[in-house]
Amino acid sequence: MAKDFSALLDELAGYDFSGMYNSDFLHTWDKTTDELRALYAVAAALRNLRERNISPRIFNSGLAVSLFRDNSTRTRFSFSKATNLLGLQLQDLDEKKSQIAHGETVRETATMISFMADVIGIRDDMYIGAGDAYMAEVAESVDEAYRDGVLDHRPTLISLQSDSDHPTQSSADLLYLIEEFGGLENLRGKKVAVTWAYSPSYGKPLSCPQSLISLLPRFGMDVTLAHPEGYDLMGDRVEAARAYAAESGCTFKQVNTMEEAFEGADIVIPKSWAPYAAMEQRTKLYSAGDDEGIKALEKELLAQNATHMDWCSTTDLMAKTANGQDTIFMHPLPADISGVSCEHGEVMADVFDMHRVGMYKEASYKPYAIAAMIFLQKCKDPVATLKALEAQGKDRWFQA
Amino acid sequence: MAKDFSALLDELAGYDFSGMYNSDFLHTWDKTTDELRALYAVAAALRNLRERNISPRIFNSGLAVSLFRDNSTRTRFSFSKATNLLGLQLQDLDEKKSQIAHGETVRETATMISFMADVIGIRDDMYIGAGDAYMAEVAESVDEAYRDGVLDHRPTLISLQSDSDHPTQSSADLLYLIEEFGGLENLRGKKVAVTWAYSPSYGKPLSCPQSLISLLPRFGMDVTLAHPEGYDLMGDRVEAARAYAAESGCTFKQVNTMEEAFEGADIVIPKSWAPYAAMEQRTKLYSAGDDEGIKALEKELLAQNATHMDWCSTTDLMAKTANGQDTIFMHPLPADISGVSCEHGEVMADVFDMHRVGMYKEASYKPYAIAAMIFLQKCKDPVATLKALEAQGKDRWFQA
Amino acid sequence: MAKDFSALLDELAGYDFSGMYNSDFLHTWDKTTDELRALYAVAAALRNLRERNISPRIFNSGLAVSLFRDNSTRTRFSFSKATNLLGLQLQDLDEKKSQIAHGETVRETATMISFMADVIGIRDDMYIGAGDAYMAEVAESVDEAYRDGVLDHRPTLISLQSDSDHPTQSSADLLYLIEEFGGLENLRGKKVAVTWAYSPSYGKPLSCPQSLISLLPRFGMDVTLAHPEGYDLMGDRVEAARAYAAESGCTFKQVNTMEEAFEGADIVIPKSWAPYAAMEQRTKLYSAGDDEGIKALEKELLAQNATHMDWCSTTDLMAKTANGQDTIFMHPLPADISGVSCEHGEVMADVFDMHRVGMYKEASYKPYAIAAMIFLQKCKDPVATLKALEAQGKDRWFQA
Repeated sequence: MAKDFSALLDELAGYDFSGMYNSDFLHTWDKTTDELRALYAVAAALRNLRERNISPRIFNSGLAVSLFRDNSTRTRFSFSKATNLLGLQLQDLDEKKSQIAHGETVRETATMISFMADVIGIRDDMYIGAGDAYMAEVAESVDEAYRDGVLDHRPTLISLQSDSDHPTQSSADLLYLIEEFGGLENLRGKKVAVTWAYSPSYGKPLSCPQSLISLLPRFGMDVTLAHPEGYDLMGDRVEAARAYAAESGCTFKQVNTMEEAFEGADIVIPKSWAPYAAMEQRTKLYSAGDDEGIKALEKELLAQNATHMDWCSTTDLMAKTANGQDTIFMHPLPADISGVSCEHGEVMADVFDMHRVGMYKEASYKPYAIAAMIFLQKCKDPVATLKALEAQGKDRWFQA
Repeated sequence: MAKDFSALLDELAGYDFSGMYNSDFLHTWDKTTDELRALYAVAAALRNLRERNISPRIFNSGLAVSLFRDNSTRTRFSFSKATNLLGLQLQDLDEKKSQIAHGETVRETATMISFMADVIGIRDDMYIGAGDAYMAEVAESVDEAYRDGVLDHRPTLISLQSDSDHPTQSSADLLYLIEEFGGLENLRGKKVAVTWAYSPSYGKPLSCPQSLISLLPRFGMDVTLAHPEGYDLMGDRVEAARAYAAESGCTFKQVNTMEEAFEGADIVIPKSWAPYAAMEQRTKLYSAGDDEGIKALEKELLAQNATHMDWCSTTDLMAKTANGQDTIFMHPLPADISGVSCEHGEVMADVFDMHRVGMYKEASYKPYAIAAMIFLQKCKDPVATLKALEAQGKDRWFQA
Repeated sequence: MAKDFSALLDELAGYDFSGMYNSDFLHTWDKTTDELRALYAVAAALRNLRERNISPRIFNSGLAVSLFRDNSTRTRFSFSKATNLLGLQLQDLDEKKSQIAHGETVRETATMISFMADVIGIRDDMYIGAGDAYMAEVAESVDEAYRDGVLDHRPTLISLQSDSDHPTQSSADLLYLIEEFGGLENLRGKKVAVTWAYSPSYGKPLSCPQSLISLLPRFGMDVTLAHPEGYDLMGDRVEAARAYAAESGCTFKQVNTMEEAFEGADIVIPKSWAPYAAMEQRTKLYSAGDDEGIKALEKELLAQNATHMDWCSTTDLMAKTANGQDTIFMHPLPADISGVSCEHGEVMADVFDMHRVGMYKEASYKPYAIAAMIFLQKCKDPVATLKALEAQGKDRWFQA
């Protein structure tokens, strides 16, 4: 632990994060930098309590509703753990398959699941524009239901990944970096490579890299984005990254090779994603119900991917980084590991092996990131509540 | 809130509902009118506690088992919320598909899921006679297991919809009406239209309208039942409705058009259902494994439905009611809305829009109806227990 | 209850079971006889507390992860009940279908589900060697993750059935026998028939009979194993049974007919299983992806089974036992009952009927067996903790 509990509370008390109470967490860019700092402090405080066997449970009963419109194991378990830690019962709304639903259906379902619900977690990342639109509709629906007196209180929303952002992942990533570098302030000036990598599968979401380039420059990190030609991210995300960097006095640059991005990097985060333009096309085909078109596009994309098999993390590449093989290597997992999970993938087995423990630790922060979001959205006075929880000292795991 | 907490307890203390402890809730007609009044009072008391952030949790641990032999989102979530509110953990028994099982299998499964279970909720509404028979078999199995010393206590049952009744829905409906009219006593003499409506789908259960005509006349409401020729409900339910009306000194009549039913109504409840005779035939075909026969019947029924497309709630029809467009319009949802969820449906979009908030509020009572059933079945002295819960004053949602 | 609570604690205090804390429960043969005695005493103590409405909950929050690589209703519910009783939230990892996974995938998944998890229950019984290997890999993965500082504590594992052992079932069986005979010491010298029985299905796991022959001789019971030629169990399990018998001064013998096994038996446990050699062959075919080979093998095995239809428990056979029709008849359920669940099965309907209550009681011990495993693995001082729980006297089910 970088800081002890009371230091965390002091730090927290210094931020202005009053806007988070009763709000949603859909994108990191909806939040002020102070609000994000508060998030990291609360996550650390909750972890601190739990590791001292003090229960941070604030709900005696209550429901957390999850809605996964794409498969998930890691995020599902993280949400389950976070909600359980705070005392909520998870209830999954299984819609069977991803679909782009609108209007009446969304409003009605959102309201029906919200009676007695305290938080709703949604993953909807498969179609460009669809995930954000869906979450906005759910948010508006519960607003309306609350205003109309249908709900006695409004459940708050948490994005468990949309097509544009993956805030619980990037928050976990930042918590990991804070721990590794001994504090948020120490991240300033660190050089990060966010790069594309080859994968034999297709259609991986853009929200992971977008989430990173939208977040890291806000804390003064120098980000280099690398991808082959044609693998652009959403334009407004790249612009935002540039603007954040300018504001923080750090750099954001784009290069065309992994080599350039890895050169002198303190942290490397190589991962595959699909080209934005192709994903837009796919969304249109899906909306039109054009299954043949989707299959044809998939074939084309796999062929396009295959021309970039050299985008794979090797020890040679790692040697170019600031600390060689010791440089921090991150991945949200699961990774496509060459010779392990596929023939050619995002990363060589030896590189993965050397960095496995780090990536596992990175993942361990996700439940705390989610718990902190819920805590800040459901507690009017988080500092006082955390203090009270510590004073109360209820064993999480009772042993005589 | 129509009544404050202590007024609710006083009211409750005046009823004789001792028969509910350790019993099941399978049909409203198994209950005395006092028992039903107690149900509504307890539902209101639990809602009152929760809205004052006082936890009505009575279980420190314990299991609620759900068994859905038909798809469900709303009722599933309502059961989940109700059981969570009282401290039970939901465990779903997923039988994969609806089936008419008998004898050894039912007895054994019922017993195996019942160790340490406090309540079992069952939905089985697809086949005429099957749902009630199944629930009766489960009830008898747990009785026997308790008598034989296999179970240390007997879990109580709650019907989450059978082929004959939908008690949690009609209880929610009545709770909504009590709130709207400011008390159960104010419902006396109110005119209710329970009418069939056109739907492009087929085989909707009869239990919804049956549930209403079996319940509303018991509290002095004048019920008019309307449906096209051939869309009869079960005969014994209609006879029971007539008998309840006679007993209460109110009216129960049957008409052949929506217009007649809507005429002067204080409340309208239009919803599609399948003809009883056809549902009986379908059950026989299903038992015989005659898939071709089922498909042929479905075709025939859809064609029959299509001759009644004019059974749709319009503003013109609403204009005939007691309070015109302001008359209470109810539906258990989801509704088939013309031009929204289908081309032609049960209700026009403008009528649905005007009454959406009311229908959503109607739905909000279901978790409380279920929680009240459990509470009355598991508490020997509900008045004292509610009093103790209020005195205890445990925060449901802790905030320092 | 054979013993009261304080007698159980006194008994427990006399055993050396310190090795169970933070360990896994994968096979009964990994445990000392004292550890098993402690298990039975704790199971009885937990049942005693619950039946006196005292909550034995030791977790304020926490996760139990289940991983069923084979279908299960009974064991799933037992695990759910046991974990709920102690305060854990169940989170199922649904892998969709059984698969033999190795290496990176197992390690990563095991770690990812283990953040904040207190216990992991696994059923993996379909392929010879695969279940034990898989559980060993999961155990090693969480060991490593704990050593590496990825996990703040190590979740403990419980086998919910592997290809070699079914420890929660055989523990429930023994708890039932202890209750029936009024104490573990009274089982010494009792004669048990563990016999194969005919079933019209194929591929039933060997772990049930193996679990019994590996456990019962350790407490001085005379075990007779009977099966048709070719239906051998794993050789090392049979050898272990022989060794345990020798050590305890009781007998373990093998015969070729049900008649010989039933002759003079105090307890009979007839159940079908698949031949070991065939199961090994099936595992190889599965690994090779040879679906045709699997189908052919299935056909062959069903034909082989069909030559042994006379291996069915009848009243005539029961008449040969020590107490005739009153002799204890056990089965983990569901049984193949002749004329009920199949034409010809493991047991005649009249025999099953006479012994149904006993078999249901047998099943009722499984949640307590599992809860006791968790309790011993998660409590440093179970005697003190049980005492504290009784003194605390928290109602499991609150009633004023």
